[in-house]
Amino acid sequence: MEEAKGVVKHILLARGRDVSIENLHQGFAHIFESTFESTEGVAEYIAHPAHVEFANLFLSHLDKVLVIDYKPTTLRS
Amino acid sequence: MEEAKGVVKHILLARGRDVSIENLHQGFAHIFESTFESTEGVAEYIAHPAHVEFANLFLSHLDKVLVIDYKPTTLRS
Repeated sequence: MEEAKGVVKHILLARGRDVSIENLHQGFAHIFESTFESTEGVAEYIAHPAHVEFANLFLSHLDKVLVIDYKPTTLRS
Repeated sequence: MEEAKGVVKHILLARGRDVSIENLHQGFAHIFESTFESTEGVAEYIAHPAHVEFANLFLSHLDKVLVIDYKPTTLRS
């Protein structure tokens, strides 16, 4: 979904630093979690020039990165 | 937080299979996302015998696992 200025609409839900006591972080220290209305929205976001510019800058400061996109299936608690 | 039967209260929010087109999954294929009311709740969950039993069974079927716990800081969209 695009707004008037061509910026893909998405929500950066949350960010945080790993505090797990399980020692299974595999060297990853931070997490960023976003939600999109559709997989097409993710594709538009990835390809958007503003994202590409940011990603190139951001990734240059990271040792490694892992990206998982998924369509959430809610389970019972 | 514990219920009468000693089961730690938490919510398995969602699960899903990676569908990212960025090829940055680093070999990870699935995600499971849970929320807890406190870090103490996470610790109780990890130590609970039912979790230990499940984790040992579950992990034996996985090639690798990565666990990140974080206190979410919400950002503006």
